[in-house]
Amino acid sequence: MTQHYELLSGDQVLRIHEASLEILDEVGLLVRNAQAREILAAHGCRPQPGSEIMHLPRAVVEEFRASIPPSFTFGGRDPSFDRTIPGDSPVMVTGSSAPNIVDPLTGQERRARSEDLARIAHLVNELPGYDVFSISTLAEDAPAGMFSLTRFYAALKNCAKPVRGSGPPEDTEKILQLAFTIAGSEAAYRAHPFVTHHYCPVVSPLTMDFDSTQMLIYYTEQGLPCYPTIVPNAGLTSPLTLLGTLAQGNAEFLAAAVLEQMVRPGKATIYATLPTVADMRSGAYAPGAIETGVLFVGHAQMARFYNVPNGGYIGLTNSKLNDAQSGYETGMSLALGLAAGVDMFNTGGLLDALMAFDFAKAVIDDEIFMMAKRAKRGLEFSEDNLALDLIREVGPAGMFMDNAHTLERMKSAAFLPEISDRDARAQWIERGALDSQARAMRRVQDILTRDNPVVFSAEVDARVRAKFAGLVAGDSRPPQGWTHSAPPARRERTERRRREAAGQSS
Amino acid sequence: MTQHYELLSGDQVLRIHEASLEILDEVGLLVRNAQAREILAAHGCRPQPGSEIMHLPRAVVEEFRASIPPSFTFGGRDPSFDRTIPGDSPVMVTGSSAPNIVDPLTGQERRARSEDLARIAHLVNELPGYDVFSISTLAEDAPAGMFSLTRFYAALKNCAKPVRGSGPPEDTEKILQLAFTIAGSEAAYRAHPFVTHHYCPVVSPLTMDFDSTQMLIYYTEQGLPCYPTIVPNAGLTSPLTLLGTLAQGNAEFLAAAVLEQMVRPGKATIYATLPTVADMRSGAYAPGAIETGVLFVGHAQMARFYNVPNGGYIGLTNSKLNDAQSGYETGMSLALGLAAGVDMFNTGGLLDALMAFDFAKAVIDDEIFMMAKRAKRGLEFSEDNLALDLIREVGPAGMFMDNAHTLERMKSAAFLPEISDRDARAQWIERGALDSQARAMRRVQDILTRDNPVVFSAEVDARVRAKFAGLVAGDSRPPQGWTHSAPPARRERTERRRREAAGQSS
Repeated sequence: MTQHYELLSGDQVLRIHEASLEILDEVGLLVRNAQAREILAAHGCRPQPGSEIMHLPRAVVEEFRASIPPSFTFGGRDPSFDRTIPGDSPVMVTGSSAPNIVDPLTGQERRARSEDLARIAHLVNELPGYDVFSISTLAEDAPAGMFSLTRFYAALKNCAKPVRGSGPPEDTEKILQLAFTIAGSEAAYRAHPFVTHHYCPVVSPLTMDFDSTQMLIYYTEQGLPCYPTIVPNAGLTSPLTLLGTLAQGNAEFLAAAVLEQMVRPGKATIYATLPTVADMRSGAYAPGAIETGVLFVGHAQMARFYNVPNGGYIGLTNSKLNDAQSGYETGMSLALGLAAGVDMFNTGGLLDALMAFDFAKAVIDDEIFMMAKRAKRGLEFSEDNLALDLIREVGPAGMFMDNAHTLERMKSAAFLPEISDRDARAQWIERGALDSQARAMRRVQDILTRDNPVVFSAEVDARVRAKFAGLVAGDSRPPQGWTHSAPPARRERTERRRREAAGQSS
Repeated sequence: MTQHYELLSGDQVLRIHEASLEILDEVGLLVRNAQAREILAAHGCRPQPGSEIMHLPRAVVEEFRASIPPSFTFGGRDPSFDRTIPGDSPVMVTGSSAPNIVDPLTGQERRARSEDLARIAHLVNELPGYDVFSISTLAEDAPAGMFSLTRFYAALKNCAKPVRGSGPPEDTEKILQLAFTIAGSEAAYRAHPFVTHHYCPVVSPLTMDFDSTQMLIYYTEQGLPCYPTIVPNAGLTSPLTLLGTLAQGNAEFLAAAVLEQMVRPGKATIYATLPTVADMRSGAYAPGAIETGVLFVGHAQMARFYNVPNGGYIGLTNSKLNDAQSGYETGMSLALGLAAGVDMFNTGGLLDALMAFDFAKAVIDDEIFMMAKRAKRGLEFSEDNLALDLIREVGPAGMFMDNAHTLERMKSAAFLPEISDRDARAQWIERGALDSQARAMRRVQDILTRDNPVVFSAEVDARVRAKFAGLVAGDSRPPQGWTHSAPPARRERTERRRREAAGQSS
């Protein structure tokens, strides 16, 4: 049994819910998207004359939020990678849509390209801590008119785990046709979708935009997996208190979720947020701040009140490199969120407040995710694990090292890290005195110099390329200078680690 | 209100308590210290014939554990630094007794000396995140017969916060005479002690040693502040399950605590631990592992069941330098512990699994501590912080930046970091592209090149030096090459940050 970390009493949760209802009813929402205004009006919301503001009566909000289901499934191209929250929590996801990448050879930041995305997809597919690949970067080399197609192609071709992404309205048809073509047919795809569509339709404070709102409505109508993320920034777009930001963010979640339920009652969604507090000395955007972790504790509690799975961008860092700051910013908020019952973490691979993807960071975050998954297993209460007979047998001043009870558990009791160094100092120096950045890059190189075991079959790839002339290559090839290695050999170890993370003996 | 993160149901807590009673009664404890055996026997424990094993009947354990008080106070040379747990939780403490130090000039590890300790004491006194200075290193240059005296002198001379430390039996008289001399008299010292004595009297599994047990008995008899830490290492000195290690560690805590209560009923103590899981690939000691964080969640829950303040060595790292690993290992376990209601964290300043002190790590940990203290403030529920009127006034698509509500909270709403970088990348490069290690060393230099505002007065120092001929200098002087700066100017800022951390407006 787990009792989540909570910062609000039951009465305080109710007060925040009431405050959110009051905000939606009395202050209302500026809804720039006309279709959204029509849908809201058709379901009992009041337009404010002479404006685009819609007032959402409390009875309407209460009615529609009640039909949100209690779980959300991310489907993967390989269904064995399907993940459902909260059942499979914590579900670990890459951070997404960074414009830049830290070049794996030069260490310099530059614009990201489709070949980078192919490598990232390959890496994420192989790293056992990752459950979902949210497309990490943009792609500067995308041919004209093929921006989203390029990103989704590179991602789906190289990663069989669930893929999450977004695209502007004009790219929608191409994204879906790509998915249908990979699946073999529209019917086959709809039977098991492997793309989750994601948008930020609410611009804080209390404003629904044009395009993202339109896309959320569209995918909801289509019955395809999608969800919104709410992103208030205290001091700039919400009150400079955690509580006020929580209340406003909660109202904004309810607005988006209620709109989804009006379009399609029973549609699954996620209570997803990226709440931040601006650094008021400079106005800097600070998703690495501990306040984001604290806000997530509140949002997780509100999500449980609504019985909706929750998550979002938690564990980000403002650091530009893999230094101590990147470690403690990612680790602290993520651990607070884990304790608070956050189901899904959009965390992996990004530095510099979502601005740049870094390969070593992605591998370091994989290690952090494996630690979090071990922590989630908790104390594993059972009479067998209590080991009273063993304590009796070994007795005072005895040794536990070589008894059967210990030998059986050597690989499963604790997470066995691959990046964290535990050598004695002399040994560590002898082995090159590497920091975790250097060890992580070794692992990146180890993975990316092998063939990708899940890349599209020749037949699927031919089908896709025949349909979309002029597509980028989309293959994960080692950067120049990295020697190509043996055929894929990691799958077995990946599988073993996944089993271990799930607490099954190997 | 805060609901702590918990991994055990009420029934499971009771089961672990029962298991611990069973261990103490039926398996018993090997008690090497004769005085401890006598005390235990005199209070109803059963000696096992032909051995040093003592059996502690459950009724005896239940009787004596009931008199442990619910709080523990660390006294400081300056009483404004006194800290009581759980009231002042989280109380942040340095890690202690590392044999080595990373030289602040060369970056190379070497044996620590008294001048290092003086600088560390000075630094800890100035860093607002630290509440207690547990003497961080040994001192290689201590004159013969003055080992503990050297360490306590350098520490107390340069730090007015509570000092924690230990020494072997033969050093006891000198440590106390030093404290009495600083205070002016034995009576003055006993009215407000500023040293907390700390020992590890239990060697897992289930063994009480000679010296540490003797010292715990002695300071308890004397009515001076002291407490024990319990240190099982799963797979070697306890079962290779978190649950079995928790049960055995809990029994070991009860044994030490019950002995204290037999010596002096109502004596304050701490439920303090450093539980680890050995890395079974190499046998490596791994206090940086996430399993230590999880074990603390269990121990904190047991401590609450006993209504005893808790803490220990949590947030340590195995890393040799201030890389991402050092950040996530310290940050993740510490955040889990914070969510679980750990009161005291013996964390700061150490690298390499307690082997080496590092100045930059001490400053980075100060930042982590300030983040933890901000997190502890939580969501600060109040109608004022809910800011409904403000949300109404600003309205959809409005701005929160320049209203009075925001301006009032610019310095207090969020922690304003000094080490974490939040610049845009171009600015960060322009400012030298420093990592957190480099920024931390700048702060070390800023503090250590100023005079120490709390150093002993000439009168106190003369008194001490007259009593102990041949003492080391014990002054905090900047390392060679670091220019001496202006007189102390940080106190004002330190005070302001302390107020902010406490949630008071400045």
